[in-house]
Amino acid sequence: MADWIEELQRELGDCVHTDTPTLEAHAGDKWHAAHLPEAVVLATCTAQVSAAMKVAAKHRIPVTPRGAGVGYVGGCVPVRGGLVISTAPMQRIVELNPADGVAVVEAGVLTADLQEACARVGWFYPPDPASRKESSIGGNIATNAGGPRCLKYGVTRSYVLGLEVVLADGRILTCGGRTHKNKQGFDLTGLFCGSEGMLGIITKATLRIIPAPPARAALHASFPRFALAAQAVQNILQGGHLPCAIEITDAYTLTAARAYLQNEVLPADAQGHIIVEIDGQADAVATELQSITRILHNTGATTICPACTEDEVEQIWQLRREFSYSLKATGLTKLNEDIVIPRSQLVQLVEFCESMQQETGIPVACFGHSGDGNIHTNIMVPKDAQGKDIREPADALVHRLFRWVTEHGGSITGEHGIGLAKAPWFPAAIGDTAMDAHRALKQALDPLHILNPGKMSLD
Amino acid sequence: MADWIEELQRELGDCVHTDTPTLEAHAGDKWHAAHLPEAVVLATCTAQVSAAMKVAAKHRIPVTPRGAGVGYVGGCVPVRGGLVISTAPMQRIVELNPADGVAVVEAGVLTADLQEACARVGWFYPPDPASRKESSIGGNIATNAGGPRCLKYGVTRSYVLGLEVVLADGRILTCGGRTHKNKQGFDLTGLFCGSEGMLGIITKATLRIIPAPPARAALHASFPRFALAAQAVQNILQGGHLPCAIEITDAYTLTAARAYLQNEVLPADAQGHIIVEIDGQADAVATELQSITRILHNTGATTICPACTEDEVEQIWQLRREFSYSLKATGLTKLNEDIVIPRSQLVQLVEFCESMQQETGIPVACFGHSGDGNIHTNIMVPKDAQGKDIREPADALVHRLFRWVTEHGGSITGEHGIGLAKAPWFPAAIGDTAMDAHRALKQALDPLHILNPGKMSLD
Repeated sequence: MADWIEELQRELGDCVHTDTPTLEAHAGDKWHAAHLPEAVVLATCTAQVSAAMKVAAKHRIPVTPRGAGVGYVGGCVPVRGGLVISTAPMQRIVELNPADGVAVVEAGVLTADLQEACARVGWFYPPDPASRKESSIGGNIATNAGGPRCLKYGVTRSYVLGLEVVLADGRILTCGGRTHKNKQGFDLTGLFCGSEGMLGIITKATLRIIPAPPARAALHASFPRFALAAQAVQNILQGGHLPCAIEITDAYTLTAARAYLQNEVLPADAQGHIIVEIDGQADAVATELQSITRILHNTGATTICPACTEDEVEQIWQLRREFSYSLKATGLTKLNEDIVIPRSQLVQLVEFCESMQQETGIPVACFGHSGDGNIHTNIMVPKDAQGKDIREPADALVHRLFRWVTEHGGSITGEHGIGLAKAPWFPAAIGDTAMDAHRALKQALDPLHILNPGKMSLD
Repeated sequence: MADWIEELQRELGDCVHTDTPTLEAHAGDKWHAAHLPEAVVLATCTAQVSAAMKVAAKHRIPVTPRGAGVGYVGGCVPVRGGLVISTAPMQRIVELNPADGVAVVEAGVLTADLQEACARVGWFYPPDPASRKESSIGGNIATNAGGPRCLKYGVTRSYVLGLEVVLADGRILTCGGRTHKNKQGFDLTGLFCGSEGMLGIITKATLRIIPAPPARAALHASFPRFALAAQAVQNILQGGHLPCAIEITDAYTLTAARAYLQNEVLPADAQGHIIVEIDGQADAVATELQSITRILHNTGATTICPACTEDEVEQIWQLRREFSYSLKATGLTKLNEDIVIPRSQLVQLVEFCESMQQETGIPVACFGHSGDGNIHTNIMVPKDAQGKDIREPADALVHRLFRWVTEHGGSITGEHGIGLAKAPWFPAAIGDTAMDAHRALKQALDPLHILNPGKMSLD
């Protein structure tokens, strides 16, 4: 056994694992790539993370930090082997304090668990990635996770007041704090948000929580053309409404959903569809729902279905989840690219995807968070598409999509991050000067380049 | 004339100034310290900022970036002489695009001008520092400016989607973009927000704008004890309301205001006072105002004055401004410290300030943004208090205040920044490890240490 693993075991005892099942369970995330680490530390406290990091720094061992391991871009694949440090066991909600409007949580707390704890005292932690029942706060922060409700509430970063981070040399940094405003120096807290484990390991977070809005409502509406659905998004906002979420769905996905659902929820001629959720004071929600209904009617919606009770609202979100299932039910595998475009270019994006589909024969299904332009663009390939004849055109299509997005002022990722999956396109997306700035920051905080190496095309 | 100034003049011509009035006009901000630069570049475009920075880097000349120059902490005092680069002339609103929900502005645009431009098309740029009519977007970003409405809307950083920044070597960095979500690598955009001109010079910003809420309303209420006013803040939030702003005022300020205003607006026995502003859909605002009124009544408010029209709401904010004027009318000078405390400690802060006042005889007036714990704590000293007998006890009082704030989980600055004024207390406030991280980031992006030297105790 390697010296450094023996040293880890001496220092840390039982939380160091080298058995094959544990190594295999920490070889990757939801993306297809995987690589075995040589050892895994399942940390139960910050001191263990710090001690493990010190050993790794001393021996210059690559360290891949890991939360719940449910990312989509291979961000926690230990591509250089070495050590995985998992904060998944650190699941303590240390403090829930509405009087200060903060929650203090260990990195391994599942996002849904925090949300439920807040809800029990009438408070609210808004960030809502689809993975919230299985993803952890630490991972959410490391990827600056989003979700449908970001339109109104902003991404994870907007809720992180302070962090405890183990640095590359094992020292424990505390930055930010528990106040809702803080202008003490550079925004270290913000820098670690979205840093994908490449600048430090997040072990604890102080999060901003807000009073839970007393009521919510939703509606879903179908349109005979996708362009009308996109226009409806603009008209709602232009009408002075800022819903929590506006989700849009394209014709391909709707066709798949009709086949899958076998019911009458979606009219046969629907080529575009939106879901709108609003929240706030009960009276306000009721009148705002009417006002938005009027806007949708005037924009040419063929069906508008309101949801006023919690159950009805949940049914609408269930419909949203079923869009995803129905794409799976086509028998194809979806390569989900979480691109973002300026909101005005929804129609252009869908038209571009349709033209690629006609050209290549590979279907592209678009649906997602239209309010902030974050459209999940799903390239539909045959299952287990490892064959060169499928893989190559699919990769070429992704390449063209990312180039189009970059050329149109968009972002190649809105929520999932760069990791391994998007690393090849990252330098072109941000440009040479920004790449240099990335390298300089990496060098500043991880001079040995041992933290999550091989990601973001930085080394 | 120095070589580097001649080189600047050759490269940049008329925008380089060395006349005494211009040097004097760029020697400081609203804080008391001042130091003359040797030359000033009044930049009208990014290319000029870049060219000037390249000359400065070549000759290793200290550069002090400057926006509108209305900061409170000496952040743009050129303490080492050298060059001031002002972006104040860069006042172009490049684009106002509700369809994408963005505004693109040059750094010198005054915040109020942008807000008015947005309002004309029914949109809204929420950050509202008190200085908004005279402070520029570039300065707002460099200090991550706040304001009363941050409680609901967050600070400047929440609205910065992308930046153009001239780096220490003169290269032009573009980071972030025009999408509302963006997970492309590290959060460079966020790092420059609040970096106080020490990591780069902000020349252009792409800002998030949101639909203007159609209606707003406000109220102000007086309480027989400050603790009841603080309790009212908690009860409003606990009642499921998230107002734009909740401002609180202490007994000392109220006494000064009664003397200054000479009217019946504030009852004689008021020892605490709050202002609440809400916004949203018209129906919602009306019912929410009633609901908050009920809460305040139950918390023991002696007077509750609602404001439902725009004029009435403005009158309440005028009252808020008059609190400031009335402190000035005492004949004393207020040393305004923008400390932040966890929201639950409002009463403890005011009691601590009262105890310091009793001990030292120096009055301390507290008022400010209670919703986010950002209380402007004004140490009232005789005008032109340069005499050692006044200055020393006042400084000692500030020192004790900052130590108390740091020990109670607060921040020594919520809005103004560190600059020169708070530099002596900065290292203790953030700790050794965070100071090291600051130095590492500074070294990474400004290896010659020429950008705004002498600030934040970093060199």
